[in-house]
Amino acid sequence: MRASRYLIATQKETPADAEIISHQLMLRAGMIRKLAAGLYTWLPMGLRTLRKVERIVREEMDKSGGQEVLMPAVQPAELWEESGRWTQYGGELLRMNDRHGRDFCFGPTHEEVITDLIRNELKSYKELPANFYQIQTKFRDERRPRFGVMRAREFVMKDAYSFHLNAESLNDTYQVMHRTYCSIFDRLGLDYRPVQADSGAIGGSASHEFHVLASSGEDDIVFSTESSYAANIEKAEAVAPAGERPAPGEAMAEVATPGQRTIAAISEFLELDVKRTVKTLLVKGEADEDGNAGLVALILRGDHSLNEIKAENLAGIAEPLTMATDEEILAAVGCQPGSIGPVNLNVPVIVDRSAAHLADFVCGANKDDYHLTGVNWERDVPLARVEDIRNVVEGDPSPDGKGTLEIRRGIEVGHIFKLGNKYSQAMNATVLDENGKTAVMEMGCYGIGVSRIVAASIEQNHDDKGIIWPDAIAPFEIAIVTLNGHKSPTVAEAGEKLYEQLRQAGYDVLLDDRNERPGVKFADMELIGIPHRFVVSDRGLTAGTLEYKGRRDADKQDIPLEQALPFMVKASPRKGL
Amino acid sequence: MRASRYLIATQKETPADAEIISHQLMLRAGMIRKLAAGLYTWLPMGLRTLRKVERIVREEMDKSGGQEVLMPAVQPAELWEESGRWTQYGGELLRMNDRHGRDFCFGPTHEEVITDLIRNELKSYKELPANFYQIQTKFRDERRPRFGVMRAREFVMKDAYSFHLNAESLNDTYQVMHRTYCSIFDRLGLDYRPVQADSGAIGGSASHEFHVLASSGEDDIVFSTESSYAANIEKAEAVAPAGERPAPGEAMAEVATPGQRTIAAISEFLELDVKRTVKTLLVKGEADEDGNAGLVALILRGDHSLNEIKAENLAGIAEPLTMATDEEILAAVGCQPGSIGPVNLNVPVIVDRSAAHLADFVCGANKDDYHLTGVNWERDVPLARVEDIRNVVEGDPSPDGKGTLEIRRGIEVGHIFKLGNKYSQAMNATVLDENGKTAVMEMGCYGIGVSRIVAASIEQNHDDKGIIWPDAIAPFEIAIVTLNGHKSPTVAEAGEKLYEQLRQAGYDVLLDDRNERPGVKFADMELIGIPHRFVVSDRGLTAGTLEYKGRRDADKQDIPLEQALPFMVKASPRKGL
Repeated sequence: MRASRYLIATQKETPADAEIISHQLMLRAGMIRKLAAGLYTWLPMGLRTLRKVERIVREEMDKSGGQEVLMPAVQPAELWEESGRWTQYGGELLRMNDRHGRDFCFGPTHEEVITDLIRNELKSYKELPANFYQIQTKFRDERRPRFGVMRAREFVMKDAYSFHLNAESLNDTYQVMHRTYCSIFDRLGLDYRPVQADSGAIGGSASHEFHVLASSGEDDIVFSTESSYAANIEKAEAVAPAGERPAPGEAMAEVATPGQRTIAAISEFLELDVKRTVKTLLVKGEADEDGNAGLVALILRGDHSLNEIKAENLAGIAEPLTMATDEEILAAVGCQPGSIGPVNLNVPVIVDRSAAHLADFVCGANKDDYHLTGVNWERDVPLARVEDIRNVVEGDPSPDGKGTLEIRRGIEVGHIFKLGNKYSQAMNATVLDENGKTAVMEMGCYGIGVSRIVAASIEQNHDDKGIIWPDAIAPFEIAIVTLNGHKSPTVAEAGEKLYEQLRQAGYDVLLDDRNERPGVKFADMELIGIPHRFVVSDRGLTAGTLEYKGRRDADKQDIPLEQALPFMVKASPRKGL
Repeated sequence: MRASRYLIATQKETPADAEIISHQLMLRAGMIRKLAAGLYTWLPMGLRTLRKVERIVREEMDKSGGQEVLMPAVQPAELWEESGRWTQYGGELLRMNDRHGRDFCFGPTHEEVITDLIRNELKSYKELPANFYQIQTKFRDERRPRFGVMRAREFVMKDAYSFHLNAESLNDTYQVMHRTYCSIFDRLGLDYRPVQADSGAIGGSASHEFHVLASSGEDDIVFSTESSYAANIEKAEAVAPAGERPAPGEAMAEVATPGQRTIAAISEFLELDVKRTVKTLLVKGEADEDGNAGLVALILRGDHSLNEIKAENLAGIAEPLTMATDEEILAAVGCQPGSIGPVNLNVPVIVDRSAAHLADFVCGANKDDYHLTGVNWERDVPLARVEDIRNVVEGDPSPDGKGTLEIRRGIEVGHIFKLGNKYSQAMNATVLDENGKTAVMEMGCYGIGVSRIVAASIEQNHDDKGIIWPDAIAPFEIAIVTLNGHKSPTVAEAGEKLYEQLRQAGYDVLLDDRNERPGVKFADMELIGIPHRFVVSDRGLTAGTLEYKGRRDADKQDIPLEQALPFMVKASPRKGL
């Protein structure tokens, strides 16, 4: 491509509303433009990278036996009513009416549509397993779209759905997809980690997320220092502290704590390590047959935070997790939220493993402005139910017993699920098994955030000059910058010749033939992040050389003119060369 | 691809609700499935063809200097309000509200979005001309979606938009796009015609449609028998009859025509050639400053039909064309619609060129149940305004003076427009010209119905066994059918070997290794329309041959086993072989 005939829409200024580096650089490098909140146009430069990501995803999906389909973006409400999600799915589902007043949505995901398709198409176990995928524009009406294409409302996703006679077959395909995802992210040149994830809301028995490691990531992911254990924070297990609970050493006493309503305030007021306190959170319990729901108390060590997903997954707790209001607490317990404690509490109590290991701890007295000190489980308050309900913290032991946990930030770019029969059961998607009996299919689903990957890659690959693309997804692999080509026909001609030579060898080349100052051209090519750069100048041509600089190189080097192609083939091997 | 691991979703029965052959065959060949009215899932087999069409369109657009972008499907209402189309666009615009209650639409076209983008990105005439395109899923909420993907609500379109400093530059790009479209449709193997089209509603000065000729087409297109003149029926000019209008021969007389209200009835009742009658249609006139609109009479020869587009484009007539109601006619003229005529009519009269050439004609007397005979222009009624307001009919003289007109049915697969400054003016899209002065850009827009092309191709390429794909867009180019491969390892092995050989040579090959009867496999491959078929059998292998049959061939032929590849290269040449 000749830059003089191409939209090079670089910008010097960092856009004010772009918070993270990938968003800033995608705008500055002229890859995207905002149309409205969470809606972006992909400019030519950005679309080239997006299409390369798509191609890698497609090739690996095909290689693993996936069959590409394309389902409508607009989906009828009837199918979502069958699965129950028309009412369950919240504000992120963009709903609409057609001209006849019928309900539709802009699909954020396609479980219902594919299940409907497959229940009509596949009749026999002989046609299983089967795995269908699409690469498609989806819509999720995010309350707070932000970070550019990282959390856009309209985005490109690869979604795949597999169908099986039984759980073993699902498990096989799940493993294949796990490996396929690793191949995809390897080829994309990403530093990523597959981590165990909670599969709660979507259902099913297992789930892994694939995270690109980046400080701007919105998710906490957890690793063991000494094993391959990795999980997202929602899923990472907080194991019980080692050893026996210490024996009681103090007598329980009520102390006045006027105006002290937070854990921090209490521990300062009583001059006590926060780890000796517990906090008591009241949440809604599961509703009974008549729809009445009482409250449930969750007890955590003062320095720990509630893991809402873990809590929500417990029996007896309403889903989604709902905190009791101040009024409900006052009515049930008779005090303000800051003064609740487990002793003599008239609601069921669930104690976190770490809190359950405390002795001589401090808690609210269920009376405003009073706390209890020297409290001990069993002696002062029964320890009926102990569960893992907290987020792990750095230094916690790894659940597999090897090493301790580290926490890093990740950007979720892939997610694979064993759905089991959640959708197939609800929508009656069955086949005949070997014995001619009707069997509900098992399903898996497998997503990749295609457009998000573009941003995630930039989060990992940039410097103060701009983006640094891996060769595989660079909009152009090579930039040829001609210096004063509009004045020097020799330079212009040599530039064209090199351009044709490298292009015909199969490289994506951008010939920067613009009538711009060298500094402007260099800055643009670096901002755009093209991995390989040749400079054609009169000075060089006189000496029979080109200047080469890799985007990550500290120094330039001179290459004999006729060595350009062999040099490139060595730097970035090409099939058949 | 191995058929045993691929969704071959063929059906024997012709679906009841599929009216046209392409819709029937796309369903029967397992290319698409209906999700809801006008919403189709592309199954793997269909998607392969769709992607090949996309690729050809993309390659030719790139070759002609188009720059690919990807704009959001969901568009904010504000932009459509700027252009005025938010209110003008009818029920086909799928409107929706996001979670914050803001108005959006699912884009049926992207003039507003691209104009908004370009007015922000391009500042100088030096950056012009520029041509941006996308291949994207669009939505048009058709009142009556039908014919499968031919007239679906959700569909894939290539839309391109060019920007220019002046009309000359627009004209150049328009010509380039005209040639590009011809290259695209040539490569797609379509029998098509570019025809002049009306550019009324979208505006602009010129427009051509590209029609695939097919009897199932919904449009009438008009050709000269002796020149390259071609236009759609909306645009095709009906020239005035040759020679002078005959002199009056009869006296005007009023005759009673009790109950005779149609042209057919009148001409039968009066035993008169229908070509001696005129019909008078009353339509709404253009509203004056106060919003009041009178009626206008349109006079046509009895055997001719009104061309609504031509009428609507005339000064003095309301847009869109609106027929007067019976009540309005009664109030204005004092009679029923079937008895109106131009003589002493108290509304302005516009006479079609052919009607204006009549002498001694019959018309309504503006009095129920009475007509006038022997009426003559000028003598009995002034001939104030003569215009071309009728549809041409077969046998009319060609407007270029060469030959007569033929009418055939066409499927519109492409449309190019000179938009002029309709959008750039309304949305203030300007650049600085050579003199540093602000200039409103000229625009062109260029559409191709990508998914419709798949259906249109089938309308032209099928027989009673199924689809007959051109090589360029066949889902697979070659089918290898193994006979009893599950019983004969020799056959299975030879099939695999041939499959690998042809695949590695760059052909898209479907190896039909299914455990099905030969008849089933042959029927499926023919229904799917794969252009080249090899059969591997024990009998053939013993003789060292394969059987070959082209999809259009009457007879099979035996090919020596080792000649398969050279044979294919000859039948369907491959780059580099």
